[in-house]
Order: sequence, then C-alpha cells, then structure tokens
Amino acid sequence: MELSGLLPALFGVGGLIVAWLIFGKVKEYPAGESKVAEIGEQIHLGAMVFMRREYTYLILCCIILVVFLGIVLGLKTAIAFIVGALCSGAAGYIGMSTATRANVRTTTAAHTEGAAAALTVAFYGGSIMGLAVASMGLLGLGTLYLFFGGDPDTAHAIHGFGMGASSVALFSRVGGGIYTKSADIGADLVGKIEAGIPEDDPRNPGVIADNVGDNVGDVAGMGSDIFESYCGAMIACIAMASTMAAAIIDPMGERPALMFLPLALASTGLMCSILGIWIVRTQANRSPEVALRIGTLGTTFLFIVVSVFIIKWVGIAGKVWFAVLVGAIGGMIIGLVTEYFTAGKPVRHIASQGQTGAATVIIAGLAVGMQSVVVPILSICAIIAISNEAAGLYGVGIAAVGMLATVGITMAIDAYGPVADNAGGIAEMAGLGESTRKITDSLDELGNTTAAIGKGFAIGAAALAALAIITAYVETVASRIADFSLELGNPEVLIGLFLGGVLPFLIAALTMTAVGDAAAEMIEEIRRQFREIPGLLEGEATPDTARCVEIATTAALKKMLPPGIIAILAPMVVGFGIGAEALGGMLGGALLGCVLMALTMANAGGAWDNAKKYIEKGNLGGKGTETHAAAVVGDTVGDPFKDTSGPSMNILINVMAIVSLVIAPVLS
Amino acid sequence: MELSGLLPALFGVGGLIVAWLIFGKVKEYPAGESKVAEIGEQIHLGAMVFMRREYTYLILCCIILVVFLGIVLGLKTAIAFIVGALCSGAAGYIGMSTATRANVRTTTAAHTEGAAAALTVAFYGGSIMGLAVASMGLLGLGTLYLFFGGDPDTAHAIHGFGMGASSVALFSRVGGGIYTKSADIGADLVGKIEAGIPEDDPRNPGVIADNVGDNVGDVAGMGSDIFESYCGAMIACIAMASTMAAAIIDPMGERPALMFLPLALASTGLMCSILGIWIVRTQANRSPEVALRIGTLGTTFLFIVVSVFIIKWVGIAGKVWFAVLVGAIGGMIIGLVTEYFTAGKPVRHIASQGQTGAATVIIAGLAVGMQSVVVPILSICAIIAISNEAAGLYGVGIAAVGMLATVGITMAIDAYGPVADNAGGIAEMAGLGESTRKITDSLDELGNTTAAIGKGFAIGAAALAALAIITAYVETVASRIADFSLELGNPEVLIGLFLGGVLPFLIAALTMTAVGDAAAEMIEEIRRQFREIPGLLEGEATPDTARCVEIATTAALKKMLPPGIIAILAPMVVGFGIGAEALGGMLGGALLGCVLMALTMANAGGAWDNAKKYIEKGNLGGKGTETHAAAVVGDTVGDPFKDTSGPSMNILINVMAIVSLVIAPVLS
Repeated sequence: MELSGLLPALFGVGGLIVAWLIFGKVKEYPAGESKVAEIGEQIHLGAMVFMRREYTYLILCCIILVVFLGIVLGLKTAIAFIVGALCSGAAGYIGMSTATRANVRTTTAAHTEGAAAALTVAFYGGSIMGLAVASMGLLGLGTLYLFFGGDPDTAHAIHGFGMGASSVALFSRVGGGIYTKSADIGADLVGKIEAGIPEDDPRNPGVIADNVGDNVGDVAGMGSDIFESYCGAMIACIAMASTMAAAIIDPMGERPALMFLPLALASTGLMCSILGIWIVRTQANRSPEVALRIGTLGTTFLFIVVSVFIIKWVGIAGKVWFAVLVGAIGGMIIGLVTEYFTAGKPVRHIASQGQTGAATVIIAGLAVGMQSVVVPILSICAIIAISNEAAGLYGVGIAAVGMLATVGITMAIDAYGPVADNAGGIAEMAGLGESTRKITDSLDELGNTTAAIGKGFAIGAAALAALAIITAYVETVASRIADFSLELGNPEVLIGLFLGGVLPFLIAALTMTAVGDAAAEMIEEIRRQFREIPGLLEGEATPDTARCVEIATTAALKKMLPPGIIAILAPMVVGFGIGAEALGGMLGGALLGCVLMALTMANAGGAWDNAKKYIEKGNLGGKGTETHAAAVVGDTVGDPFKDTSGPSMNILINVMAIVSLVIAPVLS
Repeated sequence: MELSGLLPALFGVGGLIVAWLIFGKVKEYPAGESKVAEIGEQIHLGAMVFMRREYTYLILCCIILVVFLGIVLGLKTAIAFIVGALCSGAAGYIGMSTATRANVRTTTAAHTEGAAAALTVAFYGGSIMGLAVASMGLLGLGTLYLFFGGDPDTAHAIHGFGMGASSVALFSRVGGGIYTKSADIGADLVGKIEAGIPEDDPRNPGVIADNVGDNVGDVAGMGSDIFESYCGAMIACIAMASTMAAAIIDPMGERPALMFLPLALASTGLMCSILGIWIVRTQANRSPEVALRIGTLGTTFLFIVVSVFIIKWVGIAGKVWFAVLVGAIGGMIIGLVTEYFTAGKPVRHIASQGQTGAATVIIAGLAVGMQSVVVPILSICAIIAISNEAAGLYGVGIAAVGMLATVGITMAIDAYGPVADNAGGIAEMAGLGESTRKITDSLDELGNTTAAIGKGFAIGAAALAALAIITAYVETVASRIADFSLELGNPEVLIGLFLGGVLPFLIAALTMTAVGDAAAEMIEEIRRQFREIPGLLEGEATPDTARCVEIATTAALKKMLPPGIIAILAPMVVGFGIGAEALGGMLGGALLGCVLMALTMANAGGAWDNAKKYIEKGNLGGKGTETHAAAVVGDTVGDPFKDTSGPSMNILINVMAIVSLVIAPVLS
C-alpha cells in the first residue's frame, strides 16, 4: 500500500496533463475575425479583472484565517489551509481562463464549421474546468495525505484543506452569484425593457459585464462549489476513519485502508471521467443531447463497476460498495428530478398561469419549487439509510464520495453551458447572422438543461458532503468528550437547531437584497451612459463597458462580505460561546434549512426561466403578450433565486460544517 | 386542593356567562335599516352554511378517528377526543355566529352614533370569540382533568382532547384559509380589475363570499388555531408532570400541583382578560389604538404579577414563575417584531421597489419575510433557555402556558379586525356614504395591524405549544422505552429530521396551489354571471351570491383534505413504520420548518399588503400608477402566504405533535 499512496497525487497530475492537452486542442480552433476576437478578449479581460480583484480580497481574508488557525490549531492545519485555498483558486483560474478562450472559438466554429465542431469546442472548454476541479482536488489532498495522513495525530490537520477550499468557494460562489445577476438584471432591464434593444446588443454598456458574469458565476463559482463538496466528502471520510472507535472499524478492515479509500475512489472516478469525455467527443456527430447523456451515464456506470475491484484492492471487506452505489445513483436521481421540475410539466403549468397575471406565475413557481424538495430529500434519506446499513456513518461519507467521484464529467457538462451561452452572446454582439445564432441557440438551450441538472446535483452533493463533515465533527468531538451527545431533548442542542435553521433564511435574504442593490447601481450607470454618451443608441458610439464590469466587480465583492462573515463566524460564536452540543444542533438545523431552501430556490428559478422561454417559443401567444410579460416577472424573481441565493446555501452549510470540524479539537 | 380542582371548569362557565352578557350588549345595538340588515343576514347565513358543511365533513372524519383511538388507546381517550372536538367546534360556532351579528351593528353604529360606539361594538364582537376560546378550553379541559387527572394511568387519556381540538382546527384553519383567499382573489380579479368596479361593490357576485371568508378564515380559523395551542400547552404540561421522573419533580413540589398549575394559570389569565376587556371598553373614547394597547399590555402585566401568588397558592416552590414571565414577554416581543416588519420601514422599502416593477417588489418582500424570522427565533431560543433553567423541560411547557394564558384578550383584539373589516364592506355595499366609510376604514386599518400582530403571536404560541407537546411525547416514550434517545447522530433520527423538514414545504405548496385552483373556479363563475345575467353590471339585476358562497365552500372543504390527511397520517406512518426515534426526529424537523415558513410567509404577506396600502394613500404616485400595479402583484402573492399557507403551518406542527403524543403509549 505504501507506494500506492502516491497514486492519488499522480492521478491528479495526470488529469492536469489531459486538461492541458485539451486546452491545446481548443487553441487549435481559430478565435475568429477581428470583431469576434475583440469581444472575446473583452470578456476574457473582464473575467480576469474580477478574478484578480477577488483574489486580492481573498488573500487578505485568508491571512487572517491562517494566522487564527496557526495559533489555535498549529502550523500543519495552517499549511493545509493554504494548500486548499491555492488548489481551489488554481482550479477556478484554470477553468475560467480557458472557458473565456473556448467561448469565442465556439462562436467561430459555429460560424465557419457547423454544429458538431461548435459542440466539441464548447464541451472541451467545460471539460478543462471539470478536469481541473477533480485533478487539483486529488493533487492537493493526495499530497497532504502523503505527509499528514499516516499518523492519526496529524491527520486532523488535513481538515484545514477543506476550510481553505471553502473560503475560496465563499468568495467565488456568493460573490460570483451577486456579480452575474446584478449585471444580468441591470443589462436586461435598461437594455431590453427601457431602451428596447435585443439581448446581448453591442450598444448596451452592461452586456460585457453580463457575459463576464456567466463565467464568473457559472464556471468559477460552480467549480469552487463542487470542488469544496468533492474535497469535503473525502476529508470527512478520512476524519471518520481516523477517529472512529476501533470496534466499529475492525469488522470491516484496517484503519489506513479506510482512510485511503476515498482517495482511491476519487482517482477511479477521474479516470472514468476522462474516458467519458472521450466518449462524448466521439459521439459529437450525433445529437448533442444524446452525446452528453451517454457520456454521463456511461461514466457513472463504469465507475460503479470498477469501484467493486478498487474496494477489494484497497483491502476492505464488507458491504461498503453499496454506499458507493447508492451515492452514485442518488446523484443521478436528484439530477433527473431537477430536470423534471425545470423542464417538464410544471414549467407549462407555470407558463399557463401567466394568463391571469404575474401574481399567479409567482405563486405557481413558488409552489413548484417547494414541491420539488420531496423526492430529492427522500433520496437523501434512502442514501443515509442504505449507506449507514452498509458501513455505518462512514458509509454516509463514502456515499458522498461515490456521488462526487465522477465530478470530472459532471462538472464538464455543467461548465459547457456558460461557454455555449457566451458563444451565443458573442455571435449576437458581432452580428454573425441568423444561421450561426441558430446553432449557438441550440447549444445554449441544451446548456440550460444541463445547468439545471448540474445545480440539482451540486445541491445533493453539497448536502451529502456536509452531512459527512458534520458526522466527522461529531466523531471528533465525541472522541475527546466522553458524554458528548446530540440529544434533541437537550435544550442546548434544540437552541442550536433553531439558530441553525435561521441562517439559511438570513443568508438568502441578504444575498437577494445584495443582488437588488447591486443591480440598482448597474441600472443607474447604464441609464447614465445612454443619456450622456451621444450617439450610443444609434450605434455611432461605443459604450464604456469597462465601467460596468468595474461596478459589478466592486458591488459583488463588497456585498458578499456580510453573508461570508456570518457563515464563518456563526459556528465559532456558537461553538465557543455555547458549546459543542449547541454547535452540533446548529449544524443539523442549518443542513436541513440549506438543503430545503437550495432546492426550492434553484428549481423555482429554473422553472420560471424555462416557462418564459416556453412562451417565447410562441406558446400561449408568444413574445409581446401580457402572458409573456407575466412570465418575465417570474424569470426576474428566479434570477437571484437560482444563481445567487440558492447556490449560496451549498456554500453556507459546507463552510459551517468544515469550520466546525476544524475547531472541533479545541471545543469544550 | 381537592375542591379547588373544580375551579378551572367553573371559571370556564363564568367566562361563558360574561361572553353571553356581552352578546346581550351587542344585540342592544340596532342591526340597521333594511338594506344593511339584509346584507348582514346574507353574510351571516353564508358563514353558517360553511360551518354546517364543514362540521358535516368533520363529523365523518372524527368518527373514523374516534373508532381508531377507541380500539388502539381505549375508551377514555376516545371520549376525550370527542370532548375536545366539541369544545373547539362550540367555541368556533359561538365566535363566528356572534361576529356575524356584530359586523352589521358596527356599520350601523358608525353610521348613526360615531367612531367610539363603532369601536365598542366591533371590539365586543371580537371579545366574545376571545372569551369563548378561553372558556371552552378551561371548561372542557378542567372537566376532563377532574375525571381523568387524578390517576397518572388515566391522565394520558386527556391527550385525546388535544387531538380532537386539532382535528377541528385542521378543518377550520386550512379549509377557512382556502375559502377566504379563493373568494378574495376571485372577487378582486374579476370585479376590481376586469370589470373595473370598486371593492365590496354590491354588483359583484363574489362579494358576499369574500366577506364570509373574513369570518371563516380570520374569526373561526384563527380561533381554532389559538384554541389548539392554548389547550395543547396545558395538556403538554399535564403530560410532562404526570410522566417526568420523580427526581426531576421532587425538588420543585408535588406531582399533582405541577399537573394542576397550567389550569390555574389559564384560569388566572381568563380573569385578567375579562378585566382587560373592561379596560378597553372604558378607554374607547380615546384613540382606538391606545385603548387596545392599554388593554393588552395591562392584562399581560396583571397576569404576570398575579401568577406569582397563584404559583405559591398551588404549592410550588422554585423558580417556575420565571418561565411564566419569559413566555408572556416573549409573546409580546414576537408580536412587536411582526408589527415592525408589516407596518414599519420594510413596508416602505417594498413599496419603493415597486418603481422598478413587480419582480423587485416580490424579491424585496421575500427578503423581508426571510429576515423577519431572526428575532422571533432568537426570542424562542431565549424562552427555551430561561424556562428550562427555571423548571427543566416542564418550564418550557409553562412558558407556553404563560404566553397563551391571556388568550381571552389577545384573541379578542385579533377577532376585532375581521368584524371591523366586514363592517366596512357592508357600509360600501349598502352605499352608506363617505363619512361612515371613513370611520369603518380607520377601524379596519387598526384591525389590519392587530391582525398582523395576532398572526405573529399565534405563530410564536403554536411553536412553543408544539415544542411542549413534543417534549411531552419524548417524556412519554422515554418513560416506557429505556434506551430511547433522540441523538442526531442516529440515522433514524436524522432521516426523521429530513422527512419532517419536507412537510412544511409540501403543505405550503399544496395549500398555495389549492387557493389558485379554487380562485380559478370562482373567477369562472363571476365572469359567467357578468356575462349571462342581463343588467348586472348596470346595477339593474341582483347577482347570484349564494352560488359563489357554495363554490368557495365546496372547493375549500375538498382541497383541504390532502394536506389534512398528510398532517394526520405522517406521524402515524413514520411512528409505526420506522419507529419512535424517527418520529421524534421528524417532529424536530417539522417544528423548525413550520416556524420558519410560518414567520416568513405571514410577515412577507403582511408587508406586501401594507406596501400596497401605503401607495394607495397617495405615496409614490398613488393608485393607478405602474408602481401601484407592481404592489398589487405583491399583495396578491401575499394573500395565500399570510392567510392560507402561513397559518396552515401552525396547525401542521400542532396536529403532528399531538397525534404523536396520543400514539406515544403504543409505539415501539
């Protein structure tokens, strides 16, 4: 086993090499004629400006946390934190800088070569993000495991990696979410509604910021979210395996094998994902939908089969494979439920409610969102029951790893969406004509569905990862405090439960308000430019797009601080202030609240979005009718729901859980 | 103490006599000239039609439950169930039949005598409901206590009373909520928006149903909700006192004293409430707002002081009074927070968001609703911490009793709202002119504020009562199953927690959809009448209002069944199917979800309502502007939020809790 301990990090390096090779392929495609290339460059630069500014804030924030961790928990945890933050930051940087190269090339491929080539480039762009997430996770965590994992006394330091990743995710996902929606709402409201010009029209000063937002929110934000869950699930398994009472472990196998299993499974998942990416590539000439579906399902199936042998090879007997199985299948079910609620019958129901006005659209959408929680939660319950039966609470952690191991392909398909979306925007801005736009539209439409499924998957994965981390927290505290118990009848636990339940509501309110305020600033600026720049609306002057990028960047980073600080401080205040039992209750309440709110908001938002698109295709009277106007209200409400507040829930619970796990050794 | 055991029931009888005397006072006021009296009679009959139909359904439902309880838990529990259902039903009947007598008399008093007389009649109308709730609760529970309370073996039968009350509440609150909003939305949408006639215009066929709805939802529904919490809190204390381990009880006093204390406190609260009603009456010549505020605060203060002596007289040493204190104060704080969020700065913020359209109104309102949970939840946490410190978990139950003991006046002020609202409607329908309408409008406006505070109070009370019942459930199960534990790390408890969290979202979705569907039926019918009855819009023909009452009644009772059945069956399915520990977790998750959703929905709804009214007073451009249209969308979304789905949450958690307590002795 000793040499094999090197494998995860090596697999990580291998994955990065594949990603680099794919990037070479992307760059072989031409960026396009001068105007297309120029717009692409603007988006790329805008995205990089945001990243640079974000990372500046981030470094300041991280320095404070590193010093705190170093003092309270020692140097090793502080080092792990830095490694985690660097790995997550690097994955985001790689993903976003390549996505903003792939988008123009997708436009040009659609313009000069056709649909199959465009799909290939867009999917390649997404794949690099997917591989970067999986590879950086394995490389970072695998390396730390090599140095710290051998000794149970130092194994705890690895948790710092998760906290580093979570801190980056907090900035990327919450900040990115505020960025993308403030730009989107601002550009749409002034451009489409007030000035009456089409979406992505080059005269609109907010349009570059809007396209940057897709990358910032849906590529980098989503990537950091998944990265955090991916690493969190592995860390939780390592933590449980290193602290669980020997009696629980003995019947199943050796402690080191149990600690190594999550890394082995993730390495397997990465290999399967690379194969899956190759499958999608070879199927690109078929319908894009079929290609993507064969890729995902094939990868998952392959992973489930291979994991039987991996578990044996690592040296674990028992039924732990069933945990892998239910985790992987559970992830698919949650994705499919999301697809039903955001693309199936409920969408047509919401659209038809537009005939009696905006209020009924809102009521119907909220009801759909709330209904959509039932099956995913039942799936999570089934995963808990079966994986616990298979391998105790450690099994719950392994189920989370099973769901997330094939993250390479899941994330690839997810990040494909914003690349295709950007490609369409660039085609429109450059005026490439109907036929090109038609290809990018069809890619974009598919991307919307995959993005919705990806959101459902991200929520399920975050929930399960958080649950695993919380379990690890409980095990860690219980290994030190003899009579530790999260008995609900204990008033401290109960108070913690209530406090935890409040947080998702508070953070949702804060992030929604942040989008509203940031969008208002954007609206002011776009109105000002239309008013003060002569000839802008006539297309005779160029808008000051950089100013809008600047506003969205500043607003996003400023307004993500209050929710971010609450997420990091809340567990510390309750843990040190009331105690470890109250903190345990708080994590339970927050987990429940976050999952319910995340599902409701993501699915209501997705359903509203597609209800509007359904009408825009000519149903129920089509564009320009009162029904359409009502659906637009739903879509606008859904914007912060699905792209800001909903995704923030994933981060909130994971940040809270990992902070708790990190401070667990010093709680009383 | 033995003779004093008779007192609660006697106080109940005394309260009913006072209510009857007040009803005599109300009837001394004239019903008014023929047209006013006729409209009043239509509303009264419509309300009675709903009650009769509702009680028919209810009897069928109760027979099934009585047989089930009789077989599984014995005759005594079945009898207690019948008594509980009868008491709740009687309180609702008394309250609603007198409220629909007081409304016309308020109109006439406003028309012929002026504001002070109108306030007196309206408040008298509400007072009868308040006294009926408190008195029937004391009479029923006091009598059962006399027969079953002496022996811990039969004391458990008393829980049946709570389940009977909850079953009635389920029909009254959920059915009433669907009724009132389907009629309201239907009448408004076709009348005000499509036909362009004013609110409460006699030509509108839906207007009688709308006014009936105010009584059905806000008088009978609210009354049954409070009745359930009021009795539930007392039952929980009795249950805890009769099952708690002797070690916990000994230091504080005798078991019989602890069992009797909730009844003694409620009796005291009833007396204080009667005094409070008298105070409001004597202050009616001042501003109505001041009169109502002096009445509530005075009653609460008096109750807190007197309870010191009552606790001593019952024979309990220790700090249990602090539980009474924090319960009573906590109820006030939650009410005041509600007032801030539904009448303060957030309302003006929402209204100003109307300037950028309906979507921003919705986003702002949802954010306000979500923010509004923070302080009430912190208050509940503080109540739990302090009352537990004072008297263990029994103290939490006593805090709930402390909050609810002065229900006579709280409910009186709450039920005053719909009486005043109805009075305004009648004045409009009968065309009594500007000056009368002005008086009723000012009474109505105050009623809206008191109703919002009442809703906040009802949620806080329901939460605390449910918590007490859940604690009693835990104690009851723990007294039979030795190793019973609600440890959150136990997968069964965790699965229960998730399942419980799903239910509020599911029930909220079902009730919102129910309102939408029922309103659609109503819209069809009103449109049909305008189309098919010649001369209706010109005022030359009378509309078929009875048909609309019939539609709302049928739709409400039909559509309340699915949520009602889920609420009753869910604890049984989980309790018998998975086990008592999963059921405990489920109650925890449901409690958390219900409180958060109830607060969010009630306060968002109230804030939207008042934002619309704020604009209608001439702010931000006033009626007829785009801003106003945007605020109307918010108000319409808020209707099912605050009057159907939100209040259903109170019932959901209480029904689940009491069903669990009832089946606790037969769970394994």
